[in-house]
Amino acid sequence: MRSRTPPNPADGPHLAPGAEFDLIRRFLPRHAHARPDVRVGAGDDCAVVAGDGIALSCDMSVEGVHFRRDWLSLKEIGCRATAAALSDLAAVAARPVGILVSLALPEADAGMHAVQVMEGARRAAESAGGVLLGGDVTRAPAHLAIDVTAVGEAPHPVLRSGAAMGDEVWVTGELGAAGLFVEQMLAGAEPDAAARKRYAGPEPRLREARWLAERGFPTAMIDLSDGLAGDAAHLSAASGVAVLLAPELIPIHPAVLRHAASAEDALRLALAGGEDYELCFTAALGALEPFAHEFQREFGIRLTCVGRAGGGDGVWWTDAEGNRTPLGLQGYQHFREER
Amino acid sequence: MRSRTPPNPADGPHLAPGAEFDLIRRFLPRHAHARPDVRVGAGDDCAVVAGDGIALSCDMSVEGVHFRRDWLSLKEIGCRATAAALSDLAAVAARPVGILVSLALPEADAGMHAVQVMEGARRAAESAGGVLLGGDVTRAPAHLAIDVTAVGEAPHPVLRSGAAMGDEVWVTGELGAAGLFVEQMLAGAEPDAAARKRYAGPEPRLREARWLAERGFPTAMIDLSDGLAGDAAHLSAASGVAVLLAPELIPIHPAVLRHAASAEDALRLALAGGEDYELCFTAALGALEPFAHEFQREFGIRLTCVGRAGGGDGVWWTDAEGNRTPLGLQGYQHFREER
Repeated sequence: MRSRTPPNPADGPHLAPGAEFDLIRRFLPRHAHARPDVRVGAGDDCAVVAGDGIALSCDMSVEGVHFRRDWLSLKEIGCRATAAALSDLAAVAARPVGILVSLALPEADAGMHAVQVMEGARRAAESAGGVLLGGDVTRAPAHLAIDVTAVGEAPHPVLRSGAAMGDEVWVTGELGAAGLFVEQMLAGAEPDAAARKRYAGPEPRLREARWLAERGFPTAMIDLSDGLAGDAAHLSAASGVAVLLAPELIPIHPAVLRHAASAEDALRLALAGGEDYELCFTAALGALEPFAHEFQREFGIRLTCVGRAGGGDGVWWTDAEGNRTPLGLQGYQHFREER
Repeated sequence: MRSRTPPNPADGPHLAPGAEFDLIRRFLPRHAHARPDVRVGAGDDCAVVAGDGIALSCDMSVEGVHFRRDWLSLKEIGCRATAAALSDLAAVAARPVGILVSLALPEADAGMHAVQVMEGARRAAESAGGVLLGGDVTRAPAHLAIDVTAVGEAPHPVLRSGAAMGDEVWVTGELGAAGLFVEQMLAGAEPDAAARKRYAGPEPRLREARWLAERGFPTAMIDLSDGLAGDAAHLSAASGVAVLLAPELIPIHPAVLRHAASAEDALRLALAGGEDYELCFTAALGALEPFAHEFQREFGIRLTCVGRAGGGDGVWWTDAEGNRTPLGLQGYQHFREER
């Protein structure tokens, strides 16, 4: 016998009193989002989402490894971690539904610091059309860590494995600026403002990926988190093709061209600097070229054919005669001392 | 023109060479699982799952906060973190599809240690009927951290908000043993073996929850991660009812009865020890009692009515006359010094 009206879940989540839950309440939306793809929003034991294929990826960022507090504001830390996770949705051409955020932070950060990190995460999700679906907040002994799970709808995901020999290899945007910022900061140099912007606020290419996928262009796709050299190697391995890159075609970010010590150094940053969060994809020979201008008009970023898929495996430099030479560099690897 | 056969994604994920990816390869299944709810398995940028409502929850465990390496093996650390995340699926009566695991670990743990943690996580997922859907492995400056996102199908999720005044309040299993183990270890005492088992290998009540939900019993449900006192308070707040508990009805774990200093101490552990990963739910008056024996036969664990939902808010002790007295204790809170 239900003798009174329970709290309306559409008014937002209801948690018990307590310092931890006061903190969580500050993150959560006041009013549940009325959208058909979120059946249960944040505040219960699980969120429940619906769609024709739910794409999922997680991305952990750790203080002292992925970011430093003297390089970024707390909001930027949350925003950047979220952008990195959303970039994986872009890589399969998914439409964002939302994010789950797990945050481990030292006791001293429990108050406003946590709110600021979560605010950055929430804003990055919302600017991509997603909502905060849930999360976990806990104590950490020393270093802040944030793990973002990106959730999207992908009825027709573009995989890494679809490239065929003869396909063209394309990249969005311009490469190397985030890596340049890291090197400038480590060297104690005054960082380039444009490079800082690319590092602190990467823009996952979500709309761009869907534009391309809706037109059927990408045969295989990956996002550039570790650098073109390393990430193209995954696409190569998954598709069973070699990726042949033409050095003169690589779209190097202007900040890199301004500051790099040499042309070789600029190429190194563009291929192995990492954290660009652009897309690399393959498309059938000649298919995309007629539409590249339309893409650039629509999104205001470059779209560049950087090479071809060929027989064999691995990622190589190639010249006009088709001769292959080793790249001589690799993407960022977490368990080697490269930085 | 596709002149040769690319690697078959059903053979498992194909990643580029490299130490980090050798590590990841060791975690991933050799052969993709042919199941209709996993359209894209581990190894691409995203996993893609399908179902009538996808339930999602994440749970972060940090070394020195949630576990200590001198208390647990690395496999147990992975298993326990996964069980905690899966328990949130049980709380909404979802069927597990899989997990995503983000692992941050010190350089020294990059090899076999990481493999052992992931092995524990994978086994816990598989024993619940789920698969490893993806993850992230990264370096941490000092402490191991593992964040598990649990993914399930929940066509009809049971929420925290459906309890009505007059409903009975039930719990599965027996409470307090995990909290007892923590206190024994912190005190330097020889831990009770049964209590250690409950702490190291919690069994999320996934089948139990679906058994109950398929029969329409739970009006509201939550899992017990922080302790009955704290978690029932969330159910109370979400449903807009008071939870009235009878102290003599609380199912206290035998290990707690053996070791607690007093009856009050045993009750304190049962209500606020935390990490039991049992379920607390409400059901209409008299509805479940005739089926409780069948449940106990089916699952080999107790099912106990511990009180009623009443008017007002909060969680209270109640006596036969309906008098309410404060519990005088709370669930575990991450940002207070209770332990």
